[in-house]
Amino acid sequence: MLKVWPCLNFVSPSFRRTSSSMGNFIGHVFPGLFLVLYGLHQAIVVSKAVIFNDSLLYPSYPPRNKGRWAMLWKISYVGLLKMMAGSFLIVYEINCVKGGLILMNRDMPPRFMYPKEWQHLTIFILLTLNGCVDILSKNLLPQRCVVLELGVRILTFYVLLLLLVSHTQGTVGVELQVHSLLILVVFLLMLVLTAELWAPGMFHLWLIETFLFLMMGSWLVQAGFILFKPVSSYPWQDDDMSDIMFVTTFFCWHVVINALWLLGIYGFSSFWYRCYHPSLKLTGFKEAPYHASPPGPLYKLLQEVEQSEKDDQALLLPTSSP
Amino acid sequence: MLKVWPCLNFVSPSFRRTSSSMGNFIGHVFPGLFLVLYGLHQAIVVSKAVIFNDSLLYPSYPPRNKGRWAMLWKISYVGLLKMMAGSFLIVYEINCVKGGLILMNRDMPPRFMYPKEWQHLTIFILLTLNGCVDILSKNLLPQRCVVLELGVRILTFYVLLLLLVSHTQGTVGVELQVHSLLILVVFLLMLVLTAELWAPGMFHLWLIETFLFLMMGSWLVQAGFILFKPVSSYPWQDDDMSDIMFVTTFFCWHVVINALWLLGIYGFSSFWYRCYHPSLKLTGFKEAPYHASPPGPLYKLLQEVEQSEKDDQALLLPTSSP
Amino acid sequence: MLKVWPCLNFVSPSFRRTSSSMGNFIGHVFPGLFLVLYGLHQAIVVSKAVIFNDSLLYPSYPPRNKGRWAMLWKISYVGLLKMMAGSFLIVYEINCVKGGLILMNRDMPPRFMYPKEWQHLTIFILLTLNGCVDILSKNLLPQRCVVLELGVRILTFYVLLLLLVSHTQGTVGVELQVHSLLILVVFLLMLVLTAELWAPGMFHLWLIETFLFLMMGSWLVQAGFILFKPVSSYPWQDDDMSDIMFVTTFFCWHVVINALWLLGIYGFSSFWYRCYHPSLKLTGFKEAPYHASPPGPLYKLLQEVEQSEKDDQALLLPTSSP
Amino acid sequence: MLKVWPCLNFVSPSFRRTSSSMGNFIGHVFPGLFLVLYGLHQAIVVSKAVIFNDSLLYPSYPPRNKGRWAMLWKISYVGLLKMMAGSFLIVYEINCVKGGLILMNRDMPPRFMYPKEWQHLTIFILLTLNGCVDILSKNLLPQRCVVLELGVRILTFYVLLLLLVSHTQGTVGVELQVHSLLILVVFLLMLVLTAELWAPGMFHLWLIETFLFLMMGSWLVQAGFILFKPVSSYPWQDDDMSDIMFVTTFFCWHVVINALWLLGIYGFSSFWYRCYHPSLKLTGFKEAPYHASPPGPLYKLLQEVEQSEKDDQALLLPTSSP
Repeated sequence: MLKVWPCLNFVSPSFRRTSSSMGNFIGHVFPGLFLVLYGLHQAIVVSKAVIFNDSLLYPSYPPRNKGRWAMLWKISYVGLLKMMAGSFLIVYEINCVKGGLILMNRDMPPRFMYPKEWQHLTIFILLTLNGCVDILSKNLLPQRCVVLELGVRILTFYVLLLLLVSHTQGTVGVELQVHSLLILVVFLLMLVLTAELWAPGMFHLWLIETFLFLMMGSWLVQAGFILFKPVSSYPWQDDDMSDIMFVTTFFCWHVVINALWLLGIYGFSSFWYRCYHPSLKLTGFKEAPYHASPPGPLYKLLQEVEQSEKDDQALLLPTSSP
Repeated sequence: MLKVWPCLNFVSPSFRRTSSSMGNFIGHVFPGLFLVLYGLHQAIVVSKAVIFNDSLLYPSYPPRNKGRWAMLWKISYVGLLKMMAGSFLIVYEINCVKGGLILMNRDMPPRFMYPKEWQHLTIFILLTLNGCVDILSKNLLPQRCVVLELGVRILTFYVLLLLLVSHTQGTVGVELQVHSLLILVVFLLMLVLTAELWAPGMFHLWLIETFLFLMMGSWLVQAGFILFKPVSSYPWQDDDMSDIMFVTTFFCWHVVINALWLLGIYGFSSFWYRCYHPSLKLTGFKEAPYHASPPGPLYKLLQEVEQSEKDDQALLLPTSSP
Repeated sequence: MLKVWPCLNFVSPSFRRTSSSMGNFIGHVFPGLFLVLYGLHQAIVVSKAVIFNDSLLYPSYPPRNKGRWAMLWKISYVGLLKMMAGSFLIVYEINCVKGGLILMNRDMPPRFMYPKEWQHLTIFILLTLNGCVDILSKNLLPQRCVVLELGVRILTFYVLLLLLVSHTQGTVGVELQVHSLLILVVFLLMLVLTAELWAPGMFHLWLIETFLFLMMGSWLVQAGFILFKPVSSYPWQDDDMSDIMFVTTFFCWHVVINALWLLGIYGFSSFWYRCYHPSLKLTGFKEAPYHASPPGPLYKLLQEVEQSEKDDQALLLPTSSP
Repeated sequence: MLKVWPCLNFVSPSFRRTSSSMGNFIGHVFPGLFLVLYGLHQAIVVSKAVIFNDSLLYPSYPPRNKGRWAMLWKISYVGLLKMMAGSFLIVYEINCVKGGLILMNRDMPPRFMYPKEWQHLTIFILLTLNGCVDILSKNLLPQRCVVLELGVRILTFYVLLLLLVSHTQGTVGVELQVHSLLILVVFLLMLVLTAELWAPGMFHLWLIETFLFLMMGSWLVQAGFILFKPVSSYPWQDDDMSDIMFVTTFFCWHVVINALWLLGIYGFSSFWYRCYHPSLKLTGFKEAPYHASPPGPLYKLLQEVEQSEKDDQALLLPTSSP
């Protein structure tokens, strides 16, 4: 009964306070849906970038942006959304606790209160910070600072991982299995984000990241249903080996379905741009699997080599032409 | 008695249904033989590519393919085989269960049925998907999409790993040891396939992949004999330390024997092409250990640098010639 | 009661010798403060290097160093500090034990004495060695040997990790949680230092290293307070799930606060140099995120390519000019 | 009492056969000394290569080798030694068992016999194979095949790791701690050897490899003394926390001492060649820390780029000269 997401009360063996099961279900399903939508949005963005062989970090904006609302258009909507969602969740979390979210009670000896709520609050504060930094980097700074954005995102997932592991301590059976698989996804996501520090804008990593976001979201929704609203209306049994095995089986089906979603979005985007924008120069993933993503430093160095050669040639031309 | 491969019944402590031991033996040995044959086939392909210093991703076809059956020859036989094997196993798995492969029974509370069968079905569906994607990429798309093929293969092994770990929960002794070693092989295979995403066509990775396929196949066959048909006709003892140690020893012998097989195939191929096709240009692994495998993006970038220089020169030539 | 840092007595179940709780508190807080100060110092150095796009390994000294005290100025103060701190702690550790720090007592059978003290001594000796090697490399050798410095630092953290794991064996509850998180930080630090062997002078790694030093220091201080001087003056309860969860929560807050510290130092440095030294050429992290850190061998190779081309051009010029 | 190296009898709780403690002591110390000597030899070779900035894979032989014994001089002594040591140990292991080294006894049910002996035999066979492949690659093949040598060495350590883990199952206390640390060293050695597959001849990896060989050897010798011949002549106590902590402490001292050995050998070699061979061109590690080891494929590619440019220039010259 120690569940992961917001507005859960801490339930000791003596059931000090009753927790509303509906709140728990919503606490899993809403963040899950948010993550699924974010994953789908990113899937469309990455697909488009792959098809047009565009940069993921510095996308070239279509001409309609050069109107009077250009400034508005360039605002980082994702950052704004993160900031607003985070702020809303912080307010919700604080109001959710009757008598105020205090750190310690006034007994002797004093005890820490609301451990789960404080952990959720930590995550929500980081989510808000994430949004602030996105907007700061993309709109306020003279030039986008990808390292800063990535750094904050990695820290968020690092903290999320620690808190998930801490949440899972003491759980058993179906719940442990459900959360272990979630931790696996978050761990892989942290690895991929860390790898992006060295190769930002690499398509492979963005695809894997998008896939893992979709996995995390859809699995959170599934976790809400498994733990709080089983379809059969009978709770899953912790001591039934068959139930625990089916948790993993369902996870695998999510893997397959999300992969098909991703493939479908790429295929549909490719088809859409090929039919309705034939004038645009399409390259596609198939034709440009690798050099589409300039591996940062090397590419620049090579460009410099190339450049210096051109300069040399330029110097050479006037000398040899007469 | 909780075994890994198809048509195994789920055996709870109360032995709800009797499982045919023969079915289990076949369920281990047949997939094992399939994998061994696949590994041997790939060993021959990789050896040839190393000897001729050919590309593993876009092999140059010999001239006899330019006849009227050229189209047929270019079909991805491995993809076709995977698709057919997967479809056959799906049909077999579904027919194997008396009364139909249902997800839940109609009791109150309802219980999940056939957890192992559903897990096998998941793997077989992925195998079929794998074959479909291979054919799609190699024969139907205008250009081969290596990333797509690899992606599906990685997902397959990722799911296989999860299901194997789920299968192994609750086993002890000899069976746990046998399956742990299998999981180790599948884990390494997943790592190697993931590494191939960044360096497809690198000989080192292909050799390791081939070796791990051979290991997985031969160890599955061995597992079938250890668990269901011990040569001495007496079952292995879970509580005998000596038996458990010999499982690891046998695994090590498989490592040595498979490595020798791989070496033998390479040596024989090298000898064969040297004797019977002396006209062909042989380079071999010894002379071209590294630059045989262009590390994708870099190579292309460098080619572009080179190309752009040539263009510059071409531009330069008319200017300086008069 | 088996705590981590100096002058702790080994406490067997029979409480052979009483340990001064104050000593333990100091033993955690002082090394922690030392590490925090070191982290802050390094944060300033790295910030400056990033802002001026300077090399971290061979910083260009400002002109005031070319006076008569130039030699003194170039001495590695950090190395000197490490050496002095290490020597002081060795002397302190040896004097701390009444009756001398002996390895074995004279009973039959003889028993090992002071296991914790010997482990602390090992760490302090390595710290002293670290300082010696820093001075040797930076001041005495004709040219700085980065590999040697890094090698000794990696060994120090490797040994520290082993000893921390050994210290943690047998602890439970709050103490285990506190030390597990410390071990996590030290493990990541070891990984980052090992990665630096291949990419010394890379800004990313230096930033992560600085962050981890700050984390290690501030968490050691926090550990001292949690274990020996709880703010509420009541000890934390090992059997209270809430207390154990709050250990992780506090750790996450340290992560956030240290990240903000790092960001603040960078922002303030950037502001400072922009306002008071506008004459200096500022590049900043935003404008030079990647090629600021030449990835050693590649950069040199490319420079060589470029150089050789210029030479070729130079050879070409006299030939074509007449 | 389940020890690691040769001629150990398998000791079940009923002590079926008495094991000679001397055999066990020798079985740890002799392989340990062999590894230490090998490590020292490699330390000298690597030091020399670093000082002269020579290739580790294709060392340039001094002129005295061009005499009549040149062929003999070029034989791989290390390979020969491995082969001889392996063969000797196989014969010794087989003769050590009274009544012949049989796989199964003739009881009903039959039982596997001598599990430890068969595991040792596996390792010794791999050692012999290692030596054979070294000689094959260095002396018999027309060109050295580094990948083959490395592959066999990696397999050897992979198998060694598996067998060590299998040996350690069932041990506790001091013995478990001693073997866990040995397994850690072997695991790191396996990682380093695997990394060498992609960067053979890189000085960093060779230094770490040499250090780990020294560690493995000296720790095996120490393990022999701890487990069979304690200096105090009283056995170490498994239930004494102090003893178990001192195992780790001793390991850390080995780390420090071996690192100092390595440093000493490098320093002495550097001093020696500087004093007695001042005519030779010395570069040293300090001046050539990175580009001393050409990162295989990249270097060659860059050379090709350079080459093709020179060709272009050559083509350009006759055109522009008239």
